[in-house]
Amino acid sequence: MRPVAIAGIGETPMGKYPTRSVHEMVAQAGNAALLDAGVDRSQVQGLYVGNFNGQALVGQGHIGPLVAETLDLPAVPTIRTEGACASGSLALMLGIQAVQYGIYDIVLVGGVEKMTHRSTATVTEAIASAMDVELEASHGLTFPGSFAMVANRYFHEYRNIKPEMAQVAVNAHHNALLNPTAQMHKAITVEKVLEAAPIADPLGLYDCSLVTDGAAFLVLTTTEIARGLDNGHRIVEVVGTGHGGDRLTLSAKESMTSFAATKQAAAAAFGAAGLGPGDIDFAEVHDCFTITQIINTEDLGFFAPGTGADAVARGDVALDGILPINPSGGLKAKGHPIGATGISQAYEVVTQLRGAAGARQVGRSDIGLTHNLGGTAATCVVNIFKGA
Amino acid sequence: MRPVAIAGIGETPMGKYPTRSVHEMVAQAGNAALLDAGVDRSQVQGLYVGNFNGQALVGQGHIGPLVAETLDLPAVPTIRTEGACASGSLALMLGIQAVQYGIYDIVLVGGVEKMTHRSTATVTEAIASAMDVELEASHGLTFPGSFAMVANRYFHEYRNIKPEMAQVAVNAHHNALLNPTAQMHKAITVEKVLEAAPIADPLGLYDCSLVTDGAAFLVLTTTEIARGLDNGHRIVEVVGTGHGGDRLTLSAKESMTSFAATKQAAAAAFGAAGLGPGDIDFAEVHDCFTITQIINTEDLGFFAPGTGADAVARGDVALDGILPINPSGGLKAKGHPIGATGISQAYEVVTQLRGAAGARQVGRSDIGLTHNLGGTAATCVVNIFKGA
Repeated sequence: MRPVAIAGIGETPMGKYPTRSVHEMVAQAGNAALLDAGVDRSQVQGLYVGNFNGQALVGQGHIGPLVAETLDLPAVPTIRTEGACASGSLALMLGIQAVQYGIYDIVLVGGVEKMTHRSTATVTEAIASAMDVELEASHGLTFPGSFAMVANRYFHEYRNIKPEMAQVAVNAHHNALLNPTAQMHKAITVEKVLEAAPIADPLGLYDCSLVTDGAAFLVLTTTEIARGLDNGHRIVEVVGTGHGGDRLTLSAKESMTSFAATKQAAAAAFGAAGLGPGDIDFAEVHDCFTITQIINTEDLGFFAPGTGADAVARGDVALDGILPINPSGGLKAKGHPIGATGISQAYEVVTQLRGAAGARQVGRSDIGLTHNLGGTAATCVVNIFKGA
Repeated sequence: MRPVAIAGIGETPMGKYPTRSVHEMVAQAGNAALLDAGVDRSQVQGLYVGNFNGQALVGQGHIGPLVAETLDLPAVPTIRTEGACASGSLALMLGIQAVQYGIYDIVLVGGVEKMTHRSTATVTEAIASAMDVELEASHGLTFPGSFAMVANRYFHEYRNIKPEMAQVAVNAHHNALLNPTAQMHKAITVEKVLEAAPIADPLGLYDCSLVTDGAAFLVLTTTEIARGLDNGHRIVEVVGTGHGGDRLTLSAKESMTSFAATKQAAAAAFGAAGLGPGDIDFAEVHDCFTITQIINTEDLGFFAPGTGADAVARGDVALDGILPINPSGGLKAKGHPIGATGISQAYEVVTQLRGAAGARQVGRSDIGLTHNLGGTAATCVVNIFKGA
């Protein structure tokens, strides 16, 4: 397999932009990535695009060729990937494999989502299409309800960690304040989180990630080609990728407090990289809800089962902690443009590895990890990135 | 690259089954494929599923883990692929690549679509999400209108071929009458096609493919593993796969009467196989409209540009012709369960190569080809299959 490098990155500001079109967001983020890489658009040989709800919310499917036309790429073959909130990471994974196996030398991968022009009820229903509609959503379950059950089960198996979940939200808002492309620019306190309106007990308003419009793109190529590009960037390689899956319904899972898909993806990614959890300097993990971040940091092997909240309380995962989690602000405060989320996580990791994260730059930044979940943890992709 | 074989095939009857659920169709076709292959479900390592309009018509996304759970597979990683009407072929292509490159040894690929429970207007709008909604569909364009423009342009560049287009429909209905899983079991005549209600001039009712519920699945593995399976089937290998792309909008294409995406995909597939158009015994090609089949047979190199209709008139593409096209009945009469269509094409080719097609068995059946288009020819996948 050929070593793969991220040669260029681009993303839109994340936020509520109900008047921005899919085309406009794609053009901004895609062209930024091509410019950042210093490759000409005529060199792009393949395109993989993550999108979750274009058909339900915008009436737009077949988004691969739309992106190709919008970016004036040559007539490249395209695939849209969909795996709920992990749709973007699936596009990234296919792009990585295409370069690794020599299918293409230079590929563009990206994601886009347009959501905030629709009502909250419509968006909630569209997002619920990521669970089993016949067996779950049609009975009234939504994702806050699903992860509230996860949180309650976690409380039952270990202890009530509402204060630490609140601290996860506080950390996210803190980091997002330092991130110009983040959606949420507002400091909050643990007290404010705990006093917020309940959404699905025990999850309150600030335990939930955001509804976001946005796009993010990456240019991938071989490390050898990346070294020849005159873009002045540190070479950032993808040294390990893992893909995990699990049953779709919550009731069919072996555990509600540890996600098999994460463990499968993490084992594969660490194995491929020849690294372990202790080698990771910082990570972007899937914090669709505050409880999810805590469980993910346990499943990734950063902390023992049931101790993720202790690590939050100690400050380990804060921006200045020993293992900063979500320096970008995460889904919780940078935003969650669903099909673009996995790509945007990689955008942040590459930015950090380049030492270009400004006020939110983490201390050690040689090895970073992304973790992206789809649905009730039924799809997971983990990537490990290393600065050369 | 490791040689890849299709070890098992399964599909539902194609038709109007408004009360059948996605789960039920997946169970029928998926379990049939596993049984046909003689592999245990615990051996499946990866799953790729094509689906186009689950979110718009059923409210169901994230269909990969739904299939895994429905089929009681182990916790396999999944990807849903979407490229409009080529969604199924994209799943097949990723499955082929996964086996070729050693990512997995045994994979399940499939497609499913549920459409007929919704109104014609809703289905028409959902299908139009395969074109550029902002630049085309929002101005009133639908797919019959799009391909009517293609037909009119073809008439302008060459000649009026309405009678030959009608013969394409007659052939499709003839073949489907011999196919137990086909949706349409009704013989028609050229006169009847020419007298049918106009849909978008020059396309009449019988020039258009069907709205179909259905699912189809394939088990892929290495040729070596396939040889060890005790299922009694002839080994069928995928000897060439090509993927092509083009701009999304019709107005951005270089030609309206020859599709660049087909030419790109065909060149790659023939190149990989070391074969040419003259080596193909029969083919399943994308006949979303009768004009499309004729153009495709030219783009695939079977007939010179502008002469595809002559081949139809000569009977070359009939079931007993020198190059039978769509022995299954095609999208036109077997049916067009969009996300499953590319998989169902492969189902037919494998059935023919096994000599198991009964009354519709073609004469020579050693090398077959599938051709699947998405949108206004913005995505194309071509596969070449060979019986060992």
